[in-house]
Amino acid sequence: MANWGAAAQPGPLGVHTSANSRLFTFIGGETGNWSITATRRITGDPWTPAKKLMVVNGPASDLAGAKWLLRGVTTNERYVTRADKNELANRQEGLGRCDAVHAALIPIRKTAAWWALTQDERRSVFEEQSHHTAIGLKFLPAVARRLHHSRDLGTDEPFDFLTWFEFSKSNADAFDRLVADLRATKEWTYVERETEIRLVRD
Amino acid sequence: MANWGAAAQPGPLGVHTSANSRLFTFIGGETGNWSITATRRITGDPWTPAKKLMVVNGPASDLAGAKWLLRGVTTNERYVTRADKNELANRQEGLGRCDAVHAALIPIRKTAAWWALTQDERRSVFEEQSHHTAIGLKFLPAVARRLHHSRDLGTDEPFDFLTWFEFSKSNADAFDRLVADLRATKEWTYVERETEIRLVRD
Repeated sequence: MANWGAAAQPGPLGVHTSANSRLFTFIGGETGNWSITATRRITGDPWTPAKKLMVVNGPASDLAGAKWLLRGVTTNERYVTRADKNELANRQEGLGRCDAVHAALIPIRKTAAWWALTQDERRSVFEEQSHHTAIGLKFLPAVARRLHHSRDLGTDEPFDFLTWFEFSKSNADAFDRLVADLRATKEWTYVERETEIRLVRD
Repeated sequence: MANWGAAAQPGPLGVHTSANSRLFTFIGGETGNWSITATRRITGDPWTPAKKLMVVNGPASDLAGAKWLLRGVTTNERYVTRADKNELANRQEGLGRCDAVHAALIPIRKTAAWWALTQDERRSVFEEQSHHTAIGLKFLPAVARRLHHSRDLGTDEPFDFLTWFEFSKSNADAFDRLVADLRATKEWTYVERETEIRLVRD
């Protein structure tokens, strides 16, 4: 194999990852900085509980004791307008805040009907009918989040999206209202599988 | 490892692929059903020439003699409206037509500035300013195509998109006009790397 077209070192079959990977791997098992306090089925098949979660920026390297792994990439936004994006940037705070010791990982899979919609139809459901961005903005900066896409990894992933949320103990109620508001939207009628994994930082 | 959440059999590190994969692997080397007649640098770093191309629906299994591989997934459209999509569906024909013995594989990488645009800004450049869909429609059904996304595979891919085109010998001029028209658009000012690989079916 000669030309991989990238600076990173290729591994087997040319699968290689750069130092600044957009790939994140969530490993549920016996080790990690986060303790899983609840694994709650919201819609569809349940997910396997585990004790601890390890979050890796890149591919998984150590799967000793792992019960499951979920993978996703951060990528360009698919629906927000420039006005939305600026407003979000002004109000959100980063992950890793000292007092944000509570977290949630919410994997979601949307229906085939959702993916058969065109971009304008999905945008209409997402924002004009469901006010997804506006709901999220109401809970900024209390609830910080990072969205990962799993659908186009090229492998059979069990979910389309993984969203990671961090918040302080006093903002746990705000987080519960956020997800309740989203689950009441038209957009959520296109969710066929959802699990809510709640965690506390060790 | 216990719960992979999908029916397919997992391979190492849980990377598994279903029978109906959306992943396509293009392998340039010594074997394959297509002979590469030209490998033409359009923008940015050149790509390594090879003699033959093998197209695999799924991950690569045999890399003997391979000089390079490119991977991408078919996925939901990002810009077309319902009206566009219906018009495209009415006019396009499938890949694999008997007389479509000419083909092209065009890998493209877009700039960081493109990916920093919001959805509405990208749509505006793509269609309102560049008429991408309208240009493509002009050459249907003569030029059949399939678009593969590489950007969100989770690995360091050298290109963001791989487009595969098939056409008859008598429509080779139409194909040349199609790519010339696209390369003259505002959208193409956001292309930082492009190679045109031309092929004939053996």
